[in-house]
Amino acid sequence: MSEVAEAGARRRARGGGGAARRAERTAVRIEAARYIERAVPTMEILNEEALQIIERNAETVLEEIGVAFTDNPGALALWREAGADVRDERVRIPRGLARKLCATAPATITQHARNPERNVEIGGKTTVFAPVYGPPFVRDAEGGRRYATMADFETFVKLGYMSKWLHHSGGTVCEPTDIAVNKRHLDMIHAHMRLSDKPFMGSVTDPARAADSVAMCEILFGKEFVAENTVMTSLININSPMTLDGVMMGALEVYARANQACIISPFIVGGAMAPVSVMGTLTQVLAEVLAGVAYSQLVRPGAPVIFGAFVASIDMNSGAPTFGTPEATKILWGAGQLARRLGLPFRSGGALCGSKLPDAQAAYETANTLNAALLGGVNFMLHACGWLEGGLVASFEKFVMDADQLGALHSIAAGIDISEDAQAMDAIREVGPGGHYLGCAHTQANFKTAFWRSGLLDYKPFETWAEEGARDTQMLATARVKQMLADYQAPPLDEGVAEGLRTFVAKRKAAEPDAFV
Amino acid sequence: MSEVAEAGARRRARGGGGAARRAERTAVRIEAARYIERAVPTMEILNEEALQIIERNAETVLEEIGVAFTDNPGALALWREAGADVRDERVRIPRGLARKLCATAPATITQHARNPERNVEIGGKTTVFAPVYGPPFVRDAEGGRRYATMADFETFVKLGYMSKWLHHSGGTVCEPTDIAVNKRHLDMIHAHMRLSDKPFMGSVTDPARAADSVAMCEILFGKEFVAENTVMTSLININSPMTLDGVMMGALEVYARANQACIISPFIVGGAMAPVSVMGTLTQVLAEVLAGVAYSQLVRPGAPVIFGAFVASIDMNSGAPTFGTPEATKILWGAGQLARRLGLPFRSGGALCGSKLPDAQAAYETANTLNAALLGGVNFMLHACGWLEGGLVASFEKFVMDADQLGALHSIAAGIDISEDAQAMDAIREVGPGGHYLGCAHTQANFKTAFWRSGLLDYKPFETWAEEGARDTQMLATARVKQMLADYQAPPLDEGVAEGLRTFVAKRKAAEPDAFV
Repeated sequence: MSEVAEAGARRRARGGGGAARRAERTAVRIEAARYIERAVPTMEILNEEALQIIERNAETVLEEIGVAFTDNPGALALWREAGADVRDERVRIPRGLARKLCATAPATITQHARNPERNVEIGGKTTVFAPVYGPPFVRDAEGGRRYATMADFETFVKLGYMSKWLHHSGGTVCEPTDIAVNKRHLDMIHAHMRLSDKPFMGSVTDPARAADSVAMCEILFGKEFVAENTVMTSLININSPMTLDGVMMGALEVYARANQACIISPFIVGGAMAPVSVMGTLTQVLAEVLAGVAYSQLVRPGAPVIFGAFVASIDMNSGAPTFGTPEATKILWGAGQLARRLGLPFRSGGALCGSKLPDAQAAYETANTLNAALLGGVNFMLHACGWLEGGLVASFEKFVMDADQLGALHSIAAGIDISEDAQAMDAIREVGPGGHYLGCAHTQANFKTAFWRSGLLDYKPFETWAEEGARDTQMLATARVKQMLADYQAPPLDEGVAEGLRTFVAKRKAAEPDAFV
Repeated sequence: MSEVAEAGARRRARGGGGAARRAERTAVRIEAARYIERAVPTMEILNEEALQIIERNAETVLEEIGVAFTDNPGALALWREAGADVRDERVRIPRGLARKLCATAPATITQHARNPERNVEIGGKTTVFAPVYGPPFVRDAEGGRRYATMADFETFVKLGYMSKWLHHSGGTVCEPTDIAVNKRHLDMIHAHMRLSDKPFMGSVTDPARAADSVAMCEILFGKEFVAENTVMTSLININSPMTLDGVMMGALEVYARANQACIISPFIVGGAMAPVSVMGTLTQVLAEVLAGVAYSQLVRPGAPVIFGAFVASIDMNSGAPTFGTPEATKILWGAGQLARRLGLPFRSGGALCGSKLPDAQAAYETANTLNAALLGGVNFMLHACGWLEGGLVASFEKFVMDADQLGALHSIAAGIDISEDAQAMDAIREVGPGGHYLGCAHTQANFKTAFWRSGLLDYKPFETWAEEGARDTQMLATARVKQMLADYQAPPLDEGVAEGLRTFVAKRKAAEPDAFV
């Protein structure tokens, strides 16, 4: 038995016996797909010449222009020691040094969940879907657009747990604005731990909150287990262009030292935080990621990290960020190639859109990005469902609409079965010219699994659909959200662990006054 | 001056002088993008082994099972002469024969438009967008779903002419059900000729109507020009499985003899007209196309043809065809590979969806198909805009919504500019860590063309959008349809030609009584 499987078995024994019995008693089956292992080729939009130009230019950026590590004397010291040219807060990195430092970062990360069946592999041919991250607002058809609360947050975690094609519970699925800024991370992590058994993300808004996240994981998984395994993947944004600020790097330092994974992710609205060109943006993205990943390896060689690229472009008329655009697709594909050449897991994509409503615009833009991201070889797809209005809004309806589409991506990624049964020559012989396949033996044997089927969209005849109220997708989604919440049952959690988490959260909340900025 | 350019110049001289002056006088600029030449790689989902299996199995299908050429003694005679085993209406084609016959079909087709600037190349790296084909119903937000009329048809042709990213005027953009079945082809072709100057498709519902289509083109382009050039691309469906019926083959014969292009296209709802598996469906598609294309070359070696694959899958619960599904994507990619190995232009894809409304479902399914089709190397994309409800409905709003998205595909297909200017190193140097790119020289020089911008979708700040009525995509599209129709101006047409067409149509209509079946 491998170390990982053994750990899983331990945890199953701890919390799982009653779980299995309870699961059998209930009529509702909660399904969870395994993460994707892609059997289809990736889009290689850049040729070798273009890739080498970008890599050369990124090294020039690091060497001549450098990056800023702000409010972080410790980082400056580490860089000086490593051989960089450090003046004020500017770090100029000699050609080749950052890439050399990156070499100690692992190519693949196993992120453990408290239910070992929900563990995910991030890297290589895998793709892992995680929900929307960060919106201060929520929206649904009945309540409209409003500030997000902790109740909304819990609802999203439940929907994520109930979503078959979602592998990951995510992080800040919305900002619980009714909880103090300095304490909401406790409630968020606690909700992921209680209401779901899928893997999740830690807090990054302050190094102390990252430390709280680690401490809570030690209660959930055991201290020893956390020391040896990755149980969180957290989002470290780079303040583009080329600024790695003290708060984010402070959180990164906590996680890297604790052997926990970080996504090191330039946050770019092209034309504002990066050049208006694809090549220029890719150059900057690579320089920034090289600097961030290299720094993680200075903190702890071997720390698990992910090459991130969050890319939107700006609408030059309104100044608004735009999503699902062709330039973002091309940057995503190029960044994927750069990440693979670095041998790092890759984060990008998601259900990105600019629309205010879960309407056709939202779906065009989202589908453009989801398809591009799958083919771009994304390993960790944050924002894979629920994102609306440029990330300002987490939408309940769009969450289930997008999560349904993630099923289609699973099926594309599986590639084409070329077995003799799949070749279906017997069926073609049996049916012959002018016949039909509905009743033939091959169809009977295979129809249940042959085609991916949406669990949400309308496939009914026009007349039936009209009689049932001529509902559009949003209305179907409203009904589905209600059904999923009605069916929700929390995954079982060992009472001792649950008590430990409650005590920790209460103690930490009592330790300081509420802060709302 | 090449023969083609010379012919173009002739026609320009004939109808274009006044056109240019009139165009200058008007404030509305009618833009038309050139067809796409793809600078990005195609998706190669099947490996060599899988491709060889399909090719071998398709030959087995042709040899052992054969295909039916129904109600067509002439075709049976041609096949017998070519060496096939013909019994009753079943044609069994010896291994290798069909592929050998296909070799005389050209790899690329130039379809001429009456405005030579609108000529399209179909084959190789090109992609040409044509609108929806065939729906008996139309829908818009104001009038709901209703039977299509000739007035609706003309409206769609006008919208197509006004749509920048649409290269082709199409064929039966909707069925004008208020015109007699035996005469509507005259009005349809006439509308394409009068109301647009983009290329179009001929009638296929009867060999005599195909002949009418050719005769009308001889009036529009000149008899000699039509004899030497392709001026129509028409849709010949195969009645899958493996039936090539007399009406469709009759129309094919007319067009092939007249050197006009045909799409030879299995019409497949997987699970009903083909096996439930991707490999089985691809095998049948290849066998059917090989038989159809080979037959076109028996009729006239060198006749221009396109490898078609229209593929939906069946929902095993409702029996309805479904669109934008992962299986359809995989079949499209595989069929593209098979077409390229045969050296034939490829038709597939489009704005396919099953939704009853132009809502999020419609847009997810459409975007899934449009993206798959572009990357699958589609050369002729029929149904690229306006398709709704599984092809039963042509939607005015969806027409402009989809046509807008086609602009994004143009930009993806253009690939990545790797020039020194695009590398933007000066911009990165100018801005540096912590700056922003909005005002820098590189942005100022490039922002107008740097990013594709939707002409329809909402990029406004939330507050502005809310003040303006919180419109969803369909409402934005309703307004755009009205604006486009208000701006529409017919492209100028030589009065002698116009009179000739009117006379021909009147004469042919008077020659037989109306038939409504």
